[in-house]
Amino acid sequence: MEFSAQQIAEVINGRVDGNPEVKVHFVSKIEEGKKGTLSFLANPKYTKYIYSTEASIVIVNHDFEPDRKLKTTLIRVEDAYSAFAALLEFYNKFKLNKTGVSDKASVSESAMIGKDVYIGDFAVVSDNVILGDNAKIYPQVYIGENSKIGKGTTLFSGSKIYPETFIGNNCNIHSGAVIGSDGFGFAPQADNNYMKIAQIGNVIIEDDVEVGANTTIDRATIGSTIIRKGVKLDNLIQIAHNVEIDENTVIAAQTGISGTTKVGKNCLFGGQVGLAGHLVIADNVKIQAQSGIGKSIKKDGDVVQGTPAFGIMSYNKSYIHFKNLPEIVARLNELEKKLSEEK
Amino acid sequence: MEFSAQQIAEVINGRVDGNPEVKVHFVSKIEEGKKGTLSFLANPKYTKYIYSTEASIVIVNHDFEPDRKLKTTLIRVEDAYSAFAALLEFYNKFKLNKTGVSDKASVSESAMIGKDVYIGDFAVVSDNVILGDNAKIYPQVYIGENSKIGKGTTLFSGSKIYPETFIGNNCNIHSGAVIGSDGFGFAPQADNNYMKIAQIGNVIIEDDVEVGANTTIDRATIGSTIIRKGVKLDNLIQIAHNVEIDENTVIAAQTGISGTTKVGKNCLFGGQVGLAGHLVIADNVKIQAQSGIGKSIKKDGDVVQGTPAFGIMSYNKSYIHFKNLPEIVARLNELEKKLSEEK
Amino acid sequence: MEFSAQQIAEVINGRVDGNPEVKVHFVSKIEEGKKGTLSFLANPKYTKYIYSTEASIVIVNHDFEPDRKLKTTLIRVEDAYSAFAALLEFYNKFKLNKTGVSDKASVSESAMIGKDVYIGDFAVVSDNVILGDNAKIYPQVYIGENSKIGKGTTLFSGSKIYPETFIGNNCNIHSGAVIGSDGFGFAPQADNNYMKIAQIGNVIIEDDVEVGANTTIDRATIGSTIIRKGVKLDNLIQIAHNVEIDENTVIAAQTGISGTTKVGKNCLFGGQVGLAGHLVIADNVKIQAQSGIGKSIKKDGDVVQGTPAFGIMSYNKSYIHFKNLPEIVARLNELEKKLSEEK
Repeated sequence: MEFSAQQIAEVINGRVDGNPEVKVHFVSKIEEGKKGTLSFLANPKYTKYIYSTEASIVIVNHDFEPDRKLKTTLIRVEDAYSAFAALLEFYNKFKLNKTGVSDKASVSESAMIGKDVYIGDFAVVSDNVILGDNAKIYPQVYIGENSKIGKGTTLFSGSKIYPETFIGNNCNIHSGAVIGSDGFGFAPQADNNYMKIAQIGNVIIEDDVEVGANTTIDRATIGSTIIRKGVKLDNLIQIAHNVEIDENTVIAAQTGISGTTKVGKNCLFGGQVGLAGHLVIADNVKIQAQSGIGKSIKKDGDVVQGTPAFGIMSYNKSYIHFKNLPEIVARLNELEKKLSEEK
Repeated sequence: MEFSAQQIAEVINGRVDGNPEVKVHFVSKIEEGKKGTLSFLANPKYTKYIYSTEASIVIVNHDFEPDRKLKTTLIRVEDAYSAFAALLEFYNKFKLNKTGVSDKASVSESAMIGKDVYIGDFAVVSDNVILGDNAKIYPQVYIGENSKIGKGTTLFSGSKIYPETFIGNNCNIHSGAVIGSDGFGFAPQADNNYMKIAQIGNVIIEDDVEVGANTTIDRATIGSTIIRKGVKLDNLIQIAHNVEIDENTVIAAQTGISGTTKVGKNCLFGGQVGLAGHLVIADNVKIQAQSGIGKSIKKDGDVVQGTPAFGIMSYNKSYIHFKNLPEIVARLNELEKKLSEEK
Repeated sequence: MEFSAQQIAEVINGRVDGNPEVKVHFVSKIEEGKKGTLSFLANPKYTKYIYSTEASIVIVNHDFEPDRKLKTTLIRVEDAYSAFAALLEFYNKFKLNKTGVSDKASVSESAMIGKDVYIGDFAVVSDNVILGDNAKIYPQVYIGENSKIGKGTTLFSGSKIYPETFIGNNCNIHSGAVIGSDGFGFAPQADNNYMKIAQIGNVIIEDDVEVGANTTIDRATIGSTIIRKGVKLDNLIQIAHNVEIDENTVIAAQTGISGTTKVGKNCLFGGQVGLAGHLVIADNVKIQAQSGIGKSIKKDGDVVQGTPAFGIMSYNKSYIHFKNLPEIVARLNELEKKLSEEK
């Protein structure tokens, strides 16, 4: 899709200063601008780049006064940053606003499909599935029986939703995410074998949740694995059976949470964190990247690091000494030598 | 699917005490029971919940005597826990017992398809593939040429099986798992480039193996990457080329095993463990979560922790001192001060 | 596919010594050789296995003289190792050299398809996609609008390419890899909610890049996430938005790189490494497995370990003392005791 400077100026209520016919098909940072792209100048620190940028159009504040000749076309607005952000939002919604059901999809007759839904090629919508209005089901998605997908929720290409999963409104589930796979539960037998424990619960995801690419969320053994409103999960995260994550908690990539652990509201976990099973983590807890959590964290707002993790300030102090251990041991040697010489 | 109290009582040989027509469509824990769900009461510790539960039906032991009025319908059996477990097993098998080949699947004419096989929409079964009786191939699965899938094995939606892979009987391969991708092998060249080393081996998975969602198992450079009978792999695990994992070893999520490492029988690895390449790990070894293994472990039944890992008891002792390092260094400072004052 | 000893001898310009009609369908290591497989003997250390191997054909050097009777058929060549490698390369290219567009694929009329392209069943090639000559698009791949896939590049089954992604020539993208998913960017709001920041950049992958199974590469917020020529990424790696990885850097499985970090040329990262965001890593840096990088690494060729990481030699020295901490503390106790006794 290409847009001319004139078209863009109309959308953001701006004034073209340059060639109104010049066209762009992509956006760029001003310092990396290429021909055919749109950029913006809001921070004065970046003003120097407007003279060298190859971006075809730059959105600027009304009061911007170039002190040299410009190659680029300007669009002048009240607030360049806000106008650019609004434009992106507009473009993104436009781009993602697909509708219609592909005749190459497989949609059960018993499925209930809302208004303005998109179902892409080779997607599978199984028996008794309910798709809310404006749900966007990209190609090659699988939705198992009896699942419900809320209004305005997008399942990107190839995400897999096992049966009986409930996903709320305005969620994004990225490609390769797996929701509702079997919990990892096996009962040891006398002969070192294991017997699989039937995993017959489900997964409930509330509104406004983001699930990153290739993240996995197992369904509960009994009951539900629950991801509450506003939770944001990055890519390649593992959420085990019967976990509950409370509202607005944000978790970075490659973190894993073991079975039945409950995580509070508004927590922030770094990447590659691991939590053992059956823990309770208080609200507002922050866990540094790569930390390992073996015990419940009861203090609201605690900030921890390490494996096993403890207070981040204490961890950092201990770690400085860890780096100095050769010197510390040398001092100990010296003391022992002195003391033995004294005698 | 809905079942009435009467229908369930017939399956588990129980007696309805309450409304035989009440229906359930899901199961719940008694303390979290909701309308339309089935629960059970076996542990006396949970007896109090039977008076408040919203579950529509609760399975109880014959001798259960309520001391107050109940809202829920009871089904009385000899052993409530066993009856519930049997019912789940029955339900699960029923639910998963799909058969038939979708006309939206792509099945090669040279493929050999056993009895009571299920092949879902948009699945690909390539040339010369052999599917054993009761194999269940969910939608959007890919099975490359010359692969063999054993009897009663289930490949969930979107799992990808590269050519020449052999999978045994009664295995579960979850969504997004990739079996047989290229091993990560590159020969450094003079100009800092790398030349890809052809990866022409395969993967062999024996009977009763579980492979979690989005787990990856690379095929061997030459020969086979081998996962032996009864091994259980959780989600998002990485198994590199030419690895062998012996019988009944259980590995938690996000663990990675590097090329050519051999793991013994009945081992237990926690989550996010990493093993270097070309190691040998003895039988019955336990590795704590997030540990890093750089050397072979020769002692049967060893239990290790840390990066690099050593004995778990020693690790924990060292770690307590690590947390105390600021105090240890303060004591050292004090000693040095005393000793210098003495002189 | 089966090949006779005679056919193979013709390909590698060798001489059959044994039954020219014997057939093989797979390759094996000589010490693990099975009936119906082809092996080779180059390293004299392995000569003993030629008398016991079950491999049906073994490629040997011209001058090999058995001192006992052999069961296997030999093919004699100038250089057994090179002949075997050439044969594998030949076989691999042959096996992977599929062409033709499946009538079960969904290919947009506006897509531009090069010569000798393969597009498998249930693959989606969206509007304005460009596929270079010899591109191989396996079943169930998704390629979003306006993406470009270079010459000779292979996308294995189920890999997902979001819109506007550019992939160069001769790349391999393995199953389940996700290229171009949304960056993980959210602006905190007053009420603990987060507002999603539109991610409208893309991903650029240059020539000769390998992307492992289930690896995820997020697209840039604005601009491009860039993977330069010759980079090799193993399985289950996370590359966040706006990351740049320079030429010929090799990264092992399950490593994660946070947003906007720039990695130099010819680096080697072990598995499960984590890098924080907004860092700059110099060329030729080596990072040990499971290390955590919280600061930029400015020194060309640095080798680091630990979380947070520092010089590998120093880390190892500190770690030896860490293991000895109980003994170190015992020595400290002893010194304190002596000193207090003295007084």
